[in-house]
Amino acid sequence: MQHQTIYFRNRPRIIATSTIAGPKECEGIIGRYVEKALSDDMFGESTYEKAECKMLSYVIDGAIKNAQLDRHEVDMIVSGDLLNQIISASFAARDFSVPFLGVYGACSTMAESLAVAAAFIDGGYCDRVVAATGSHFASAERQYRYPLELGTTRPPQSQWTVTAAGGALVAGTGEGISITAATLGKVVDFGITDVNNMGAAMAPAACDTILTHFRETGEAPEDYDLIVTGDLGALGSRILKDLTWEKGLDISKNHVDCGEIIYKVIEDEFQGGSGAGCSAVVLNSYLHAKMMTGGLRKILFVATGALLSTVSSGQGESIPCIAHAVVLEH
Amino acid sequence: MQHQTIYFRNRPRIIATSTIAGPKECEGIIGRYVEKALSDDMFGESTYEKAECKMLSYVIDGAIKNAQLDRHEVDMIVSGDLLNQIISASFAARDFSVPFLGVYGACSTMAESLAVAAAFIDGGYCDRVVAATGSHFASAERQYRYPLELGTTRPPQSQWTVTAAGGALVAGTGEGISITAATLGKVVDFGITDVNNMGAAMAPAACDTILTHFRETGEAPEDYDLIVTGDLGALGSRILKDLTWEKGLDISKNHVDCGEIIYKVIEDEFQGGSGAGCSAVVLNSYLHAKMMTGGLRKILFVATGALLSTVSSGQGESIPCIAHAVVLEH
Repeated sequence: MQHQTIYFRNRPRIIATSTIAGPKECEGIIGRYVEKALSDDMFGESTYEKAECKMLSYVIDGAIKNAQLDRHEVDMIVSGDLLNQIISASFAARDFSVPFLGVYGACSTMAESLAVAAAFIDGGYCDRVVAATGSHFASAERQYRYPLELGTTRPPQSQWTVTAAGGALVAGTGEGISITAATLGKVVDFGITDVNNMGAAMAPAACDTILTHFRETGEAPEDYDLIVTGDLGALGSRILKDLTWEKGLDISKNHVDCGEIIYKVIEDEFQGGSGAGCSAVVLNSYLHAKMMTGGLRKILFVATGALLSTVSSGQGESIPCIAHAVVLEH
Repeated sequence: MQHQTIYFRNRPRIIATSTIAGPKECEGIIGRYVEKALSDDMFGESTYEKAECKMLSYVIDGAIKNAQLDRHEVDMIVSGDLLNQIISASFAARDFSVPFLGVYGACSTMAESLAVAAAFIDGGYCDRVVAATGSHFASAERQYRYPLELGTTRPPQSQWTVTAAGGALVAGTGEGISITAATLGKVVDFGITDVNNMGAAMAPAACDTILTHFRETGEAPEDYDLIVTGDLGALGSRILKDLTWEKGLDISKNHVDCGEIIYKVIEDEFQGGSGAGCSAVVLNSYLHAKMMTGGLRKILFVATGALLSTVSSGQGESIPCIAHAVVLEH
């Protein structure tokens, strides 16, 4: 019988993280926790895409260094990003002489890569794996919407792609935050076609994975200090709370969304942050620090992804979405 | 210490496969072995992309049915494709109510998805996983090169993206072809910038993974009935044989390349076939049949991928490549 939740008995753990974020992002809640705060989101590169790739390379390198390891002690990099053919991840992996597993889950990539890393370590195939992802506002706008130079206005339901990256060094031994389970999501499509309304499109996928997680594990929302979604934004978070409430699950007391909390003045970015880097940077900086210092003991990290492309939307398709959840304990 | 080869002690196995291919592809060696031969590569759809997605959906469904299973008995679909944001895989997965892990390895996807499926089953996290991928000549041309309507001529070093898909049902129990090990590749870039010369770009990645595989396992080419690469084409295969020979490994006696053998009259397609569907369809139809009937006992399946995008090439980048290898035994 199909089951979506898998358990990691050997408790693979995050022994180090690394994060980087753009100037706008560092004005908010993560500012005090990010390893490297960029003063210029070009990061010394000539194109947005190269800057995004350099950011991802920075956090992969940072996670390895912060774990006091050398590259040749790392067994695998699991990474993906939002750009076509995940070039940020592939080109970043080129800098390291480490086996590479490219994944694509749009903004769910941080949870997907953590789940894959945990499975490979827990199963005894690898000792140390870097899980990392990132995104860049300008490269995402250029690819998915309009070039920035066009000065297109944004509708009120839109979100702002976060310029940031986060990486975690997952290992079989050492001190850190344990990954004890993962609930792998199904593709859920509620027929949303508005590419500016990702929160509404992704909320049903988050709802599906969260409901499945609690049904299969027999746990309740109260068992978690936080239920963290990736980047539903303010509107998407409200929808998620409504959807879960309708199904008899009340997550309102301990739910928080990375997209909703990442920016200082959320009104400027309408519904908040989005992008693979959003949940990656919040998890690996702010939440990681809160878990390590004892403020948070157990969280359910649910990163959501909208699996559309400009071609699929141009051909009239709705937006299929996915959410993967990982249980983190310290 | 880093190691690239992982072993699957519980011998997860391919208990069923499913394949589909376009009319041009069915004229060649796979014609007699493909489950569904298309008379029209639009497959009843209005766009190339929708046809590609339908093909992938067909083989996922086929692999499940051929294993005499229901969808709710499948724990995971691991899939990816060449289109931006792997929409073929994501939209195909939407048709199934099964957890989905999106991967991206360009034309190495069949090997990558088999390795991930095998690890999740061998580690005890899943019982049954579908690994599948595909590609479509027309959607790939439109996305990576020129619209077909332009009638652009092709240089002699180019390959022809295969219109085909293949899927395998990997399970922990049952009769079939065992996946006993995998060697996960590193990203290798030899500085090739010619996007029409994928064979030359990918050959060094194949060489690196093959050399690593034999070094780490202590085996020799003679231990395999076949060393099968994915889609290096005729030129890329020659380069691979030269590169491995220079490193003291002679694979010339039992090496074959799916891209080189897939088309009937290879001259028409210059260097042969390419695309994620190339090795997927050859493995899951022709090679699968040869293994099941005893003609082949043990093969090393090495699918190669070129991890470029139109943006990376447009920005002057060279082509980073990867090759993942899986050991198949019957």
